[in-house]
Amino acid sequence: MPSAYEAFHKAIREIGQLGSIEGLLDWDSETIMPDGGLSARAEQISLIATLAHERRTSPTLGELIEQLDSRVDDPIEQSNVSEARRMYERASRVPAELVTRLSRVSVLAKEAWGKARAGSDFPAFAPHLSELVNIKRHIADLIGYKGERYDALLDEYEPGMTSAQVEEVFTALRGPLCEFVRRLAHAPRKPDSSVLHRNFPRAAQESFARHLAEAIGFDFSRGRLDVSKHPFCGGTGPADVRLTTRYYEDFIAPSVFGVLHEAGHGIYEQGLPEAHMFTPAGQAVSLGIHESQSRLWENFVGRSREFWEGMYGACQRAFPDALGSVSLDAFHGAINTVSPSLIRVEADEVTYNLHIILRFEIERALIGGTLEVRDIPAAWNGKMRELLGVSPPNDAQGCLQDIHWSAGMFGYFPTYALGNLYAAQFFEAALRAIPNLRDELRRGQFAPLLAWLRENIHQHGMRYRAGELVHRVTGAPLTVEPFLRYIRTKFAPIYGLNIT
Amino acid sequence: MPSAYEAFHKAIREIGQLGSIEGLLDWDSETIMPDGGLSARAEQISLIATLAHERRTSPTLGELIEQLDSRVDDPIEQSNVSEARRMYERASRVPAELVTRLSRVSVLAKEAWGKARAGSDFPAFAPHLSELVNIKRHIADLIGYKGERYDALLDEYEPGMTSAQVEEVFTALRGPLCEFVRRLAHAPRKPDSSVLHRNFPRAAQESFARHLAEAIGFDFSRGRLDVSKHPFCGGTGPADVRLTTRYYEDFIAPSVFGVLHEAGHGIYEQGLPEAHMFTPAGQAVSLGIHESQSRLWENFVGRSREFWEGMYGACQRAFPDALGSVSLDAFHGAINTVSPSLIRVEADEVTYNLHIILRFEIERALIGGTLEVRDIPAAWNGKMRELLGVSPPNDAQGCLQDIHWSAGMFGYFPTYALGNLYAAQFFEAALRAIPNLRDELRRGQFAPLLAWLRENIHQHGMRYRAGELVHRVTGAPLTVEPFLRYIRTKFAPIYGLNIT
Repeated sequence: MPSAYEAFHKAIREIGQLGSIEGLLDWDSETIMPDGGLSARAEQISLIATLAHERRTSPTLGELIEQLDSRVDDPIEQSNVSEARRMYERASRVPAELVTRLSRVSVLAKEAWGKARAGSDFPAFAPHLSELVNIKRHIADLIGYKGERYDALLDEYEPGMTSAQVEEVFTALRGPLCEFVRRLAHAPRKPDSSVLHRNFPRAAQESFARHLAEAIGFDFSRGRLDVSKHPFCGGTGPADVRLTTRYYEDFIAPSVFGVLHEAGHGIYEQGLPEAHMFTPAGQAVSLGIHESQSRLWENFVGRSREFWEGMYGACQRAFPDALGSVSLDAFHGAINTVSPSLIRVEADEVTYNLHIILRFEIERALIGGTLEVRDIPAAWNGKMRELLGVSPPNDAQGCLQDIHWSAGMFGYFPTYALGNLYAAQFFEAALRAIPNLRDELRRGQFAPLLAWLRENIHQHGMRYRAGELVHRVTGAPLTVEPFLRYIRTKFAPIYGLNIT
Repeated sequence: MPSAYEAFHKAIREIGQLGSIEGLLDWDSETIMPDGGLSARAEQISLIATLAHERRTSPTLGELIEQLDSRVDDPIEQSNVSEARRMYERASRVPAELVTRLSRVSVLAKEAWGKARAGSDFPAFAPHLSELVNIKRHIADLIGYKGERYDALLDEYEPGMTSAQVEEVFTALRGPLCEFVRRLAHAPRKPDSSVLHRNFPRAAQESFARHLAEAIGFDFSRGRLDVSKHPFCGGTGPADVRLTTRYYEDFIAPSVFGVLHEAGHGIYEQGLPEAHMFTPAGQAVSLGIHESQSRLWENFVGRSREFWEGMYGACQRAFPDALGSVSLDAFHGAINTVSPSLIRVEADEVTYNLHIILRFEIERALIGGTLEVRDIPAAWNGKMRELLGVSPPNDAQGCLQDIHWSAGMFGYFPTYALGNLYAAQFFEAALRAIPNLRDELRRGQFAPLLAWLRENIHQHGMRYRAGELVHRVTGAPLTVEPFLRYIRTKFAPIYGLNIT
């Protein structure tokens, strides 16, 4: 007879295996699947999702969790049981019909969103969005929450985090960030990003992107790099991690920083403990922690002067026509221009979090019931002026720009900004722990930083919730100071400002 | 309440969907998966196989089949029920432990076979093979059979076919084939294949192979062509069919004829009725019928003079250095050299079937219990001399050359030769039905032949068993005469023989 934990372990591993199979089905459909395969693929994914849902909500699993909850001592076993409980409760409180309805409504909503965005026609999308908001409110009420309804949705992406906590850090961030953006706008010096828009042949971009990913520690014997319309990091587990990117021959930034970003995600995945593969103990903490790893490599490392001191020679050799006569300083300035803009995915690292604060405030009010769907455009445009000082000329470049809401993903946006804040706090801790880190980066030596991340973050899988992990790694709770210090210290010299 | 047929249909579709998911997992692991992904992939495939097996042997499915068997009138429904019955009975008669044991023994046997072949050490492989033969004998006895034990295994790959029928056609084939091989050996003219071994740049091979596949009707909006160590046709269904090949820069034949072969399989898959996707009514009849489609395009079309009359110009343009000064006649001769050789996969279309007759006789005797594993090398070498007049210098080039037995696949080999015979009989019927077919082929017009195959073979899915299909399409039962006529008519002029 297997022990209760063995039976439990087998059950949760199977759920994890189904998830990893879905990972391959998704990756394939986004990258290399022939167009004709679409409808069969939808059925395959739906079958796997149904099988996983059945297992996640199985009464047998519920009983095993109940039986084990207070009895396991081993920290690995504890993290598996506690995450399985969260998963079981979230899934079993929502009837299957509602899950099916959400998925059906969302398919139509995504289609309607695509058309509405193309025609900048918010009213055409509004009825779909209202239906999704109503379903998600209902789901949140079924799942339950301590503070407010939005917490139940946020918990899906950032387990343990509450709206009140997010509000606290966003409030602390908002004023100083707006102030700093204003200072940059009136700065004596402005870097010029036009050199990034010269001609960058695709083949050279491909090999340089691969070189970068490899240099920072992405292991290609346990991963791939391919092309997709929307870049992502997918795959089926720590030993099969698949990055995607896109190449524009007239713009180098998307492939270079896109690949550093996705490789950051990928390096985290590759560092998760393979012994616990397919179980929570072998999985990422949260979307926010995941994003901290991608942002750390993309921005804190990848947009630093030290990084390019070591790497710019190779970059010039890869693109001699475009960059042969561009100085390191000019290039470093070009990749660090700050400018309030309309589109989140194109935003620089200073203004990015303001785009997120806006979305958090709107979706929290929508779910809480204090904002109606029809009032979104006005709220959006008002907040854009307030936070960034820009006015969207239409809803396509305003509240219709992101796909998330059309997919029913409310509570997802904050994790992007949390990722930036976690990254800053982790990076400060790494600088303390590795005193010569900046020199190492200058020499293209990324192994010490990688080893520190492996040791302090990756190897733990889901053992600690995000807040607990941040405290353990940095000795302090999540705070906005490291991020504010980082941007001030970094951008002041580029823009010719005194650091105050 | 769904009707019994609806419930049955849902159940068999789910089995088909699981099979199609396994198809993607397999394809990916053979083509593009990073090496690191191997062990996770093995677990994923094993989970899907287990889930499919549970469903295939579910008592509920058994009851539905029982309930429906005599009651369905629609031919589509009939073919689904009758194939589901075959599948259910085969699967449910074999205990799960035995399936697991077979799979475990086979993993070790494949590894041992790889080493034994490398060292040409049959005794090192023999204990593994004995264990596999014993397990398969046991499985055959559990499944049951009317004629002899081997029938139960053959039925897995060629449903409805019996050892006695195979013996009958192989006996009719054997003498005339050996005689014809001897005549060719003493023929006045011998084509020279050395031009195929010139330099063929890989990129040109890739685009020419793609051109060929497209020309004969493979639809790339519903399929792909990639590279793998062992060429195959895989994918997940009629709208997502994936061919693989390999490229040798010093040998053009493997990519050209490999792709024509795999595209033949792929065109069949793409022609299966999509409305019945994931159910037997939407699946291929048998391995033999599948092979008839690949062989028809590879050999009957692809090695014909008519085909190259239309295609050789493009081929010379693709490889100007290698073939620019080679005449059409010389090229056609080169791709049609006949020579008794040691290795099945390198054999020409005349001697190929003799390699299969040898394997059929040996594996039939093994399963029947009249040949012991230790006696295989002697039996193999004796039959090689008798059928082909050659003597393997060692077991690596003799009885250790194929992977099939190490994977427990007994009863598979005959389907290769059956495919050649079906192809000949189908091609004669197509020539009768499309009087100007040879002219169409000369003009590179493959649509009439493709339409005939779609109409007569592909669209029916599994509606008819192989024997019944051959009879319906050609007006006669399976016979060796069309194949013998085909090789005599084709090779006599190439070798300067009189057709007798």
